[in-house]
Amino acid sequence: MSEALRTDLYQLTMMQAYWKSGHNPEATFDYFVRKIPSGPYLVTAGLNFFLDYIENLRFEDDDIKYLETQGFDHEFLFYLRNFTFTGDIFAMLEGSIAFPIEPIIRVTAPIMEAQLIETFLLNKMNFSSLIATKASRIVHAAKGRSIAEFGLRRAQGDGYLEATRATYIGGCASTSNVMAGKILGIPVSGTMAHSFVTSFDHEIDSYRAYADVFPKRCFLLIDTYDTIEGARKAVIVGKELEERGEKLLGVRLDSGDLCELSKQVRRILDEAGLSYVKIVASGDLNEWKIEELIDHGARIDMFGVGTELITGRPNPALDGIYKLSDVVEQGEHLPKMKLSEETVKSTLPGKKKVWRVIEKGIFVKDIISLDDEIMDNAKPLLEQIVKNGRIICKRPSLDMIRQRAALDLASLVDKYKKLDQAAVYPVEFSQKLADLRESIVEKIKRDEITGKS
Amino acid sequence: MSEALRTDLYQLTMMQAYWKSGHNPEATFDYFVRKIPSGPYLVTAGLNFFLDYIENLRFEDDDIKYLETQGFDHEFLFYLRNFTFTGDIFAMLEGSIAFPIEPIIRVTAPIMEAQLIETFLLNKMNFSSLIATKASRIVHAAKGRSIAEFGLRRAQGDGYLEATRATYIGGCASTSNVMAGKILGIPVSGTMAHSFVTSFDHEIDSYRAYADVFPKRCFLLIDTYDTIEGARKAVIVGKELEERGEKLLGVRLDSGDLCELSKQVRRILDEAGLSYVKIVASGDLNEWKIEELIDHGARIDMFGVGTELITGRPNPALDGIYKLSDVVEQGEHLPKMKLSEETVKSTLPGKKKVWRVIEKGIFVKDIISLDDEIMDNAKPLLEQIVKNGRIICKRPSLDMIRQRAALDLASLVDKYKKLDQAAVYPVEFSQKLADLRESIVEKIKRDEITGKS
Repeated sequence: MSEALRTDLYQLTMMQAYWKSGHNPEATFDYFVRKIPSGPYLVTAGLNFFLDYIENLRFEDDDIKYLETQGFDHEFLFYLRNFTFTGDIFAMLEGSIAFPIEPIIRVTAPIMEAQLIETFLLNKMNFSSLIATKASRIVHAAKGRSIAEFGLRRAQGDGYLEATRATYIGGCASTSNVMAGKILGIPVSGTMAHSFVTSFDHEIDSYRAYADVFPKRCFLLIDTYDTIEGARKAVIVGKELEERGEKLLGVRLDSGDLCELSKQVRRILDEAGLSYVKIVASGDLNEWKIEELIDHGARIDMFGVGTELITGRPNPALDGIYKLSDVVEQGEHLPKMKLSEETVKSTLPGKKKVWRVIEKGIFVKDIISLDDEIMDNAKPLLEQIVKNGRIICKRPSLDMIRQRAALDLASLVDKYKKLDQAAVYPVEFSQKLADLRESIVEKIKRDEITGKS
Repeated sequence: MSEALRTDLYQLTMMQAYWKSGHNPEATFDYFVRKIPSGPYLVTAGLNFFLDYIENLRFEDDDIKYLETQGFDHEFLFYLRNFTFTGDIFAMLEGSIAFPIEPIIRVTAPIMEAQLIETFLLNKMNFSSLIATKASRIVHAAKGRSIAEFGLRRAQGDGYLEATRATYIGGCASTSNVMAGKILGIPVSGTMAHSFVTSFDHEIDSYRAYADVFPKRCFLLIDTYDTIEGARKAVIVGKELEERGEKLLGVRLDSGDLCELSKQVRRILDEAGLSYVKIVASGDLNEWKIEELIDHGARIDMFGVGTELITGRPNPALDGIYKLSDVVEQGEHLPKMKLSEETVKSTLPGKKKVWRVIEKGIFVKDIISLDDEIMDNAKPLLEQIVKNGRIICKRPSLDMIRQRAALDLASLVDKYKKLDQAAVYPVEFSQKLADLRESIVEKIKRDEITGKS
């Protein structure tokens, strides 16, 4: 299906206004995040969707027909029929770590084209980056224990598949979401629900039925009625499996005091000689609860995380924005910015680059410069991915994107990953950029606010 | 595309275990919500998606192929090839108001079938109901002023379309989301962004360009540089429109102290004879901020709401669950429930009905009974929508669903709609249901927790 109408109406009304007024200069927009609600860094994700969109961006007949019913101009609609994106796009590669204010994607195109694509870009990049970042925090809190994503039932509807993809980029090991297994190749995991247990006359009947059918991949859910009693029944079934030359893989706790219960269950299993049986915990977990469980010595080998991971709770939206920074008129660059009390500190005019200073594999600081500057001993982070409307970059596999995120995260020292009161990563501006901003603010104050109009 | 694999892996492993163990009794599951985070009521939504899913539920060849790679049994996969849903489903119609613990959907089917569909049901119903409820609260807070949904750029990815649909069911008047206009027929709205303003040399040039192209639908965004100066420029362009026999429709504020600015802007417009020009406000709004703005006399005619509406922030997930309540074995009903400290108060065994006592068009209380009971002077809320796997209900239009929600909300008195500390709506249990629950709790304690196993 064409995604051209996956946009805000105002993009199309503005396009018609640009078109009819003959004002369609080359413009540069930056996608960036003013503030990251979870902490100092962002695991960027979603770029692959954006590239697919750019590649396939066309207005189909039924799109045009719909726009006719909304009063758009016939000549403008004729233009849309032949619309293709013709601009240039630079971006941090998917899975890269970014920090506030840094351009993550830089789009340069005739303003009509650059404007249309804003909404899709924001919708996809904001959400995937939000969830990849959330996942990275949960994985970090688990200190090497693996995280299984269990969120499909609480995901925001059709966003479930890209959400699972983002959790995998952020470091989760597996998902309950079978579609993500089929479509994206992500490892799937899962065994039984409470309904399986309650559907049998007795809890232990359900365990035996499951162990019979899955002797080699048997995890038992033990909290349906009483976790300790459930653990004792799991021991019985674990011993029965041993007699058949098989091994119970694990038990899962899904409610109650997970820390205390995990210790008791570990003891019950160990005393029965089942020290190889793993303990999985789930039930409204998040990065803070996992950190606390581990700090308190919980005997949990693996965590299943659902709602908070898949929705980003408590911050279900990333406030990433797409701002006009430069317009070319008669061959001259006119740097642009919005001016309001909230935004003056976090909007940067002009066409820009982002650089990272890396020492011995550790990220030291980033520098934002103007496009014509070169920063010594720093790595440029924006790579050209689209040239004259054509995709010119390789499309990495999901595992490569996940690996890039893991490498970037490993290069970021722990003080930036603390769940609370993390250090702020230094992002500097080049002198030329700082000077430009100051002069633009002065110009706007002079031209727009003194009532000259 | 087949949605059969849009499920948790454990649904499929449990299915195989049911199938191989020959334990596939008729089972009844209830979809209900233990606690509604936003307040006492829920605007239920998403049922139409669930019906589409049931109607089209098949395992395609590529689904089976994928499951083969995951070690599923060949005979079981052969069964899946011919899988169709054969059960009965009762539900509250889409757009109905529901309260905690009440079954909103009741599924009765062979347990393998009833189990498979859980995840899709939860994914769709939880999200749509969450957002429809959120929308209803925002609409209520606006006291008759209309709400435009502007959330696409912050929506959770591909969930954007059903999210907009849910905001419309909950009472929003329009959306910025053009795809929702095309696919769902929802009215679309939107005019210009800050980038349109900054792309011109001067703010007033942008206003004139827009007014030239859209003289009959001109809303001007006035906060790009300074809201008061922007209002003055809007007056100039409004007067120019009058000279051409047209009228400026409105101005939009998107930042700053919206209450104070709206009063000043209203005065500027009125003093210039432009009292017909509407004021629209947007910018991180939610139900509490809207209530406060109105309480403080803000001169705002219409609100645009984005992030919080489209994601449900601060509660991006509804904890709706799907619990086994009854199993039939050898012709005998065996009521079921999970037992744990958190759940005992909010889980109800047995096949149930929900009744509503309505007096003079006002909802008085609800009663949950067993399936074989009749409550006098009360309206049954669960209607049969699927019989032996076939859809037997009419599929209402989106506008009919929206109207149902509006009627139900009008029947709910204001004390239940307060944003904070709303009254709790009374939901009672029939005596037979209360007695049954008590006896089942006793039975579980006796059979499962005394260490009999």
